[in-house]
Amino acid sequence: MRVFSLKIVGLYFTFSQLKVIISMYIYNYYWRMIMLVKNLLGSRFKETPKDCVIASHALMMKGGYMKYMSTGSYSLFTPTKRITNKVEKIIREEMDGIGGQEVMFPVVMPASIWEESGRYSSIGSEMARFTDRNNAKMVLGMTHEEAAVHLARDTAQSYTDYPFMIYQIQTKFRDEPRARGGLIRVREFTMKDAYSFHTSQEDLECYYDECFKAYERIFKRAGAKNVVAVKSDSGMMGGSVSHEFMLLTDIGEDTLAICSNEECDYKANVEVAECITHEIESTVQDLEEVATPNVKTIEGLKRVLGVDPIGMCKAVVYQKNADDSYVIVFIRGDLEVNETKLRNYLRAEVHPASGISEESGIVAGFIGPVGFNGKAQVVFDKSLKGIESFVCGANKKDAHFKGMNIARDVGEVEYVEVAKAYNGGICPICGKPTITLRRGVEIGNIFQLGTKYTTSMNMTYVDSDGTRKNPIMGCYGIGVGRLVATICEEQHDDYGPIWPISIAPWQVEICCLQSTDETIKSVSDKLYEELEKSGVEVLYDERDIRPGAMFADADLLGVPVRAVVSRKTCERGVVEVSFRDKSFKGEVNMETATEDIIKIVNDLKAKYEI
Amino acid sequence: MRVFSLKIVGLYFTFSQLKVIISMYIYNYYWRMIMLVKNLLGSRFKETPKDCVIASHALMMKGGYMKYMSTGSYSLFTPTKRITNKVEKIIREEMDGIGGQEVMFPVVMPASIWEESGRYSSIGSEMARFTDRNNAKMVLGMTHEEAAVHLARDTAQSYTDYPFMIYQIQTKFRDEPRARGGLIRVREFTMKDAYSFHTSQEDLECYYDECFKAYERIFKRAGAKNVVAVKSDSGMMGGSVSHEFMLLTDIGEDTLAICSNEECDYKANVEVAECITHEIESTVQDLEEVATPNVKTIEGLKRVLGVDPIGMCKAVVYQKNADDSYVIVFIRGDLEVNETKLRNYLRAEVHPASGISEESGIVAGFIGPVGFNGKAQVVFDKSLKGIESFVCGANKKDAHFKGMNIARDVGEVEYVEVAKAYNGGICPICGKPTITLRRGVEIGNIFQLGTKYTTSMNMTYVDSDGTRKNPIMGCYGIGVGRLVATICEEQHDDYGPIWPISIAPWQVEICCLQSTDETIKSVSDKLYEELEKSGVEVLYDERDIRPGAMFADADLLGVPVRAVVSRKTCERGVVEVSFRDKSFKGEVNMETATEDIIKIVNDLKAKYEI
Repeated sequence: MRVFSLKIVGLYFTFSQLKVIISMYIYNYYWRMIMLVKNLLGSRFKETPKDCVIASHALMMKGGYMKYMSTGSYSLFTPTKRITNKVEKIIREEMDGIGGQEVMFPVVMPASIWEESGRYSSIGSEMARFTDRNNAKMVLGMTHEEAAVHLARDTAQSYTDYPFMIYQIQTKFRDEPRARGGLIRVREFTMKDAYSFHTSQEDLECYYDECFKAYERIFKRAGAKNVVAVKSDSGMMGGSVSHEFMLLTDIGEDTLAICSNEECDYKANVEVAECITHEIESTVQDLEEVATPNVKTIEGLKRVLGVDPIGMCKAVVYQKNADDSYVIVFIRGDLEVNETKLRNYLRAEVHPASGISEESGIVAGFIGPVGFNGKAQVVFDKSLKGIESFVCGANKKDAHFKGMNIARDVGEVEYVEVAKAYNGGICPICGKPTITLRRGVEIGNIFQLGTKYTTSMNMTYVDSDGTRKNPIMGCYGIGVGRLVATICEEQHDDYGPIWPISIAPWQVEICCLQSTDETIKSVSDKLYEELEKSGVEVLYDERDIRPGAMFADADLLGVPVRAVVSRKTCERGVVEVSFRDKSFKGEVNMETATEDIIKIVNDLKAKYEI
Repeated sequence: MRVFSLKIVGLYFTFSQLKVIISMYIYNYYWRMIMLVKNLLGSRFKETPKDCVIASHALMMKGGYMKYMSTGSYSLFTPTKRITNKVEKIIREEMDGIGGQEVMFPVVMPASIWEESGRYSSIGSEMARFTDRNNAKMVLGMTHEEAAVHLARDTAQSYTDYPFMIYQIQTKFRDEPRARGGLIRVREFTMKDAYSFHTSQEDLECYYDECFKAYERIFKRAGAKNVVAVKSDSGMMGGSVSHEFMLLTDIGEDTLAICSNEECDYKANVEVAECITHEIESTVQDLEEVATPNVKTIEGLKRVLGVDPIGMCKAVVYQKNADDSYVIVFIRGDLEVNETKLRNYLRAEVHPASGISEESGIVAGFIGPVGFNGKAQVVFDKSLKGIESFVCGANKKDAHFKGMNIARDVGEVEYVEVAKAYNGGICPICGKPTITLRRGVEIGNIFQLGTKYTTSMNMTYVDSDGTRKNPIMGCYGIGVGRLVATICEEQHDDYGPIWPISIAPWQVEICCLQSTDETIKSVSDKLYEELEKSGVEVLYDERDIRPGAMFADADLLGVPVRAVVSRKTCERGVVEVSFRDKSFKGEVNMETATEDIIKIVNDLKAKYEI
């Protein structure tokens, strides 16, 4: 029936004046032809849109995958929806596989449950809020810990009801100030978020490991290649232990410290990575003031005094968000301050000083630890420890010290670790100078939350000893759209995405190069028909256009297996088969093309199965 | 492996002191046991919650299907999520089957595209609005015509790109003032919304019919029984022709006029149903004023004057929302005003008069068409036409007329149809007095939208003659949660829902009545294991509880096929099999139980296949 309809559709396009009459008869068949490229809504084009600075964003715009609607918000065309449906299926299978129960929380929640947890006030403008027709305060869910506790707390009353894990795949809205990069960082996104509940820390840790492994399987099955899990800062989620799953790519916003020693497995987000510095040879010298007119930078000092930054004691000035009071970090001249560590040490939010007032007594550009009496909290980074002699500011205009020795000239100070890990730094696990910084995009995260939410929201169970306790929680997230975009970022060429077959919108694209030729067309139609019947997902391009234009569109659609039927191939009784990633190009016999292609597809799929 | 794990789990519960140690080893297996009733999150209980006035709401609360979060908003537990996943799969298949391309629109949209269509101001407080961090006005999608046009307008530029249909299954929020009945009428809901685009009205109509048939298939496959499609009012959607798919149930908010003549197919929402009245024998009489002190109602007049309401000319007073000016509808005493028809005739929103001011000159309770000179627009309903003599108000206190003849006493008037269809009224198709009023819940709707949105939002294509035209749209909605709740309303007994197997959360529930007995347990385990392996969706209850309590829970979970393994059945070498709807109860041989149950499941499934 399908072949018949294709022929009719051919007719329909040849004699367009018969359009309405014929379409009435063949509607049924005509509308089923959705796998035709010509019917696919969305434009494919050559020019890179102006606002696209990363490849995946540009290619997904040029390939008709999505359309911009407002800051950080896109409508998704069918190819993207097919991809995300497949990613969601993989996630669902793996979550079910570790005992997850799929549930559904509302997107719009009453403020009251966020007030219970305390996050209604602790979260800022990222959370969208409105009042409903009854003047009730409502919020849009950016995460669902509160909803998970709300759902579970009345029902899991006995220790025998534990452990359990609930998850959903649902829309979230986060009023993100830094929306960028297409689907990499958006305001509205589809997320899988899971919440587990336990009666002991051991049980949580045990399940956390299970979830860790499930995440590894998800990313492998979805075809992401360079994924590493790193320890991370728990941020606004609360809790202590957490890991981020990072896809390594130069466009990543996160920086990771990874040990490049093959025998070592150390990986951490640079936000939490230990910074261990090499020992430096230095000798005690006399403290000497030198004139440094207008020299306020490390580079300037190096030029004027001929001292490497490693021999300097740099001052970095911050202000606390709460009261704008100053915090000065003294740190070795070649290192940078890790603001997350500083924040955690101070237990206060800080920002780089927006300016330094005169009444503070701080002499900008010439700050040093000797004789400093400005109004500021002073922090000494661990990198300064054990070094005998520094160049540093003299706390007066146009002057620096040489030969500064902290123990002798400042006295006993507390050293804390607030420096960023750096390329070539010492690995805290294997002790070798093999720390390498890499950039990555966070595609998933897992947290050991503890009892933060169950305590604040009063969720309890009766334990075996009859006492009431708060269950211990874990939570586990994956951003579906971001995962798709980063896989595109990782696996593309200049011409388009190269989708792994496990998440590709279609498995095979048939290109019929001379669809006006009845023989060629009927060979293509037959192949299309047979592959479809066998359950292969086929996209069929039988437009009467130049081969170059057809292949350009096919490259943008990124379908892993391409089958070309042309005059040349028909004359030789073959169908040309090639892979989108260029790893294979060959021919199969026209007679056995269907079975051969099915085998090729199955072999490719097997690579992503676990 | 699974049988092994079950045994281990058995052990785990027998020796609970070994909990942690064992769970470390068997975590993998333990967590896969999600199909056990004991692991299922959600409480099942006997008492009907106070706020539940309809059966489906009560049963879905008592059965652990959902939890109230805020007005018209629920979190859904796993059984409901499994049901909605199946409903969505059916919808997706049928939408794909008529050439639909699945897409995804944002839930949060910029006000700007709603300003383009004009609905930002025309829709009132049902639409939730907020401003984002950049002070941009945003709305929550309650429908997505604007988003569909936004997505398609830049890409479908040529007539050859048409027709096409795009759809999504996504969360919507409508700040509904009348949230009620559990999932029947909520504020946040999952909806399938589809939008088709055409170059001619014929093509739209042709596709509209296709969609109509797809809807019939969807509801049949989902197991809804009493679904009728009725003509409806298009309301805020715009457009002219539209149909609602109504599931007939006494708890419905909508009233339908259905012709009970079996040879006739007439069905309409009472909002648009024609009201055709019987001819009434009446003779001309003289106009006579009668004293009716304090008699202001139809019932009072009937008692005092001995005249049936059918012989009266009743006055119903409305006010226009815009300026509170009065509108008086004269209508036959036994009929009611259809406000939708009145609104459409006046082209203005109206509400029943909240009171009648003295300066209007309207004498409440004694209003009649003879000598009326109050300040009001007067409307005569068609039901008054051709009747020679009425009782009506005399426009002064405590007086009515008898023998009023409109032509003679009032003069020539315009008759318009603003009466509600009524039980026993004349069918506009077959002409018989067979109109029956039924109540229904709207579970889907389809609209022929015309060019309302493509014109206002400036979506055009180049036609074959080179001119630019606006495409013609259709739109098609189904509320997923409401469909599920109405099916529950239609198919339940006092003990719980009776889910059709095509959408049931599980297909088979195994009840193991003496799980402490090793033999009985191992028979159940084996059956569970084998059915699962064969792809049957099994829920397994092996809790050590009373049979009555187990069956009560099973009734609430509504799984269509139940297999009971007990001491009695084991002794006789059988498994007891029964249907949740009580249509079957029998036994299968223990040896062949798996195959027999698979066959039973397949036979049941076949009923819903098309």
